[in-house]
Amino acid sequence: MAITVYELLGADDRRFSPYCWRTRMALAHKGLDAAYVPCRFTEKDRFAFADYDRMPLMTDGESTVGDSWAIACYLEEAYPDRPSLFGGAIGKAEARFFNEWIATLSGPVMRMIVKDIFDRLDAADQPYFRATREKRFGATLEEMGARSHEARPAFEAAAAPLRAVLAHQPFFCGEAPAYADYIVFGTFQIARSMSPLKLVEPGDALYDWRRRLLDLHGALGRSTNAYRE
Amino acid sequence: MAITVYELLGADDRRFSPYCWRTRMALAHKGLDAAYVPCRFTEKDRFAFADYDRMPLMTDGESTVGDSWAIACYLEEAYPDRPSLFGGAIGKAEARFFNEWIATLSGPVMRMIVKDIFDRLDAADQPYFRATREKRFGATLEEMGARSHEARPAFEAAAAPLRAVLAHQPFFCGEAPAYADYIVFGTFQIARSMSPLKLVEPGDALYDWRRRLLDLHGALGRSTNAYRE
Repeated sequence: MAITVYELLGADDRRFSPYCWRTRMALAHKGLDAAYVPCRFTEKDRFAFADYDRMPLMTDGESTVGDSWAIACYLEEAYPDRPSLFGGAIGKAEARFFNEWIATLSGPVMRMIVKDIFDRLDAADQPYFRATREKRFGATLEEMGARSHEARPAFEAAAAPLRAVLAHQPFFCGEAPAYADYIVFGTFQIARSMSPLKLVEPGDALYDWRRRLLDLHGALGRSTNAYRE
Repeated sequence: MAITVYELLGADDRRFSPYCWRTRMALAHKGLDAAYVPCRFTEKDRFAFADYDRMPLMTDGESTVGDSWAIACYLEEAYPDRPSLFGGAIGKAEARFFNEWIATLSGPVMRMIVKDIFDRLDAADQPYFRATREKRFGATLEEMGARSHEARPAFEAAAAPLRAVLAHQPFFCGEAPAYADYIVFGTFQIARSMSPLKLVEPGDALYDWRRRLLDLHGALGRSTNAYRE
């Protein structure tokens, strides 16, 4: 059986979707190879066969699964003999909290970098992105870019419990990373691949954690055009 | 071996500490009996034998353990054949995030009810509580009480990911409760036992979750003087 993942694409081959990064890391964690099909926002007809219009979308033999959380649950069930993403029922249930809580972190990140994302999209995608995001934020992308710094305090507030955890353990899943780490990592990857903004600096526990994540699985997290290291 | 827990006490036999509630629920989850020694803030000399000046403080035979998280870890290790609080290494690591993140929820709750807590402390404890809390908040208890409603939006923001999780599963630990549920429950218990303020109302997923927690372990959570059910 071959696994195929339809994955969001920016300009210059940038793979930036935080949700697609969760799936990339989950597949690598399971030791599963996958063929990646990069698609722009305006190329969703490439997976018109599916009853799902967002990415990541995964096919595995006869199975088609959309949504990063559903994909992680599918992989855990379909490949139980591979390394676990959740470590059991309680670990899976608690990872669901990360999956919902992450909006507290990713919301401010998006407000900080939405104009930068626009600038690094393929030109064909820019009108769609501008229209949807300006409607969502109730402001122009240029206004959002000028007010980027206003979202920093909310980012720092959301990051506080992450840093507090890292004072006790190297990964959010303990001594080794697992799916909850990949949920958080996705948010850092969209910033890293699409914006010159530095979310974290050397000396920060989150910076060190991110570097550990970037080194994982054959440095998979570094396999995209990005601004730093 | 007999387990003893030194537990914070308010007026009218109220047991209100969110940390002590975590320990109460953890012991019940493990099916372990304990003798509770209620202590006021000003009665810490009752456990002067310990190198720890806060509650909960637990003794189990020769072992003395302070701090609710350390107690949970001790119980999990000392009683591995009893029902698990964490469900394994990943579940334990993720529960640590709840343990740190909960400040995001409990901070606003404390700002909303700190004057109510003062009013329901034993008179001997009130001067200590007033001095420490007024210093912490930089305002008098009366000012905090008058501005109670100002903390409601922060509470609702923190509660949003909890409610989102409960749309998918009955407990934060999945189909059955475990330690991450007890971490959140403690914060609701201090409000329930010390304040007329309603944090959650019928029709709210968090209200239903709290009721499920109150029903657990022989309705242990209802075994304190409180304003509601």
